[in-house]
Amino acid sequence: MMMDKQKARVITKIYGQTYTVVGAETSEHVQYVASLVDERMREMGKHNRNLDSKKVAVLAAVNIMNDFVKLEDTVRQLEEELNNLKG
Amino acid sequence: MMMDKQKARVITKIYGQTYTVVGAETSEHVQYVASLVDERMREMGKHNRNLDSKKVAVLAAVNIMNDFVKLEDTVRQLEEELNNLKG
Repeated sequence: MMMDKQKARVITKIYGQTYTVVGAETSEHVQYVASLVDERMREMGKHNRNLDSKKVAVLAAVNIMNDFVKLEDTVRQLEEELNNLKG
Repeated sequence: MMMDKQKARVITKIYGQTYTVVGAETSEHVQYVASLVDERMREMGKHNRNLDSKKVAVLAAVNIMNDFVKLEDTVRQLEEELNNLKG
């Protein structure tokens, strides 16, 4: 998803500010993903009250990426288990 | 991972700025995750040259969360397939 003038635009509100998100996903999906990011930024902001919103966004991105990398490990383990069962 | 005065601190550089990330993870893991976020922000920034770095960070977070949600679907499918094979 990115800013792009040639695709469908979805207007989202994240951490009090409006962002236009563009991509192939449905509006509902984009709003859901945006709400998860908003939630995560609010969590980060609550625990780090001295951070400006840019730092909150970067640290939220780091947290989400950490979750993603861990979930990639889970996928690898499940695929290995599946291959063993099939083999 | 978050800012916290009581845990191990890892100093990372993301999109030209220094961030102290705190958590239970090893320094290598934190640096790896930070480098992935840095990469993603640079991609977003390249495609949206008129965005300030806060917006780049928020849109990167949205992109990463989108990847995470999709990977959750993959995990559910793999788990279902595993359960079917075991069942």
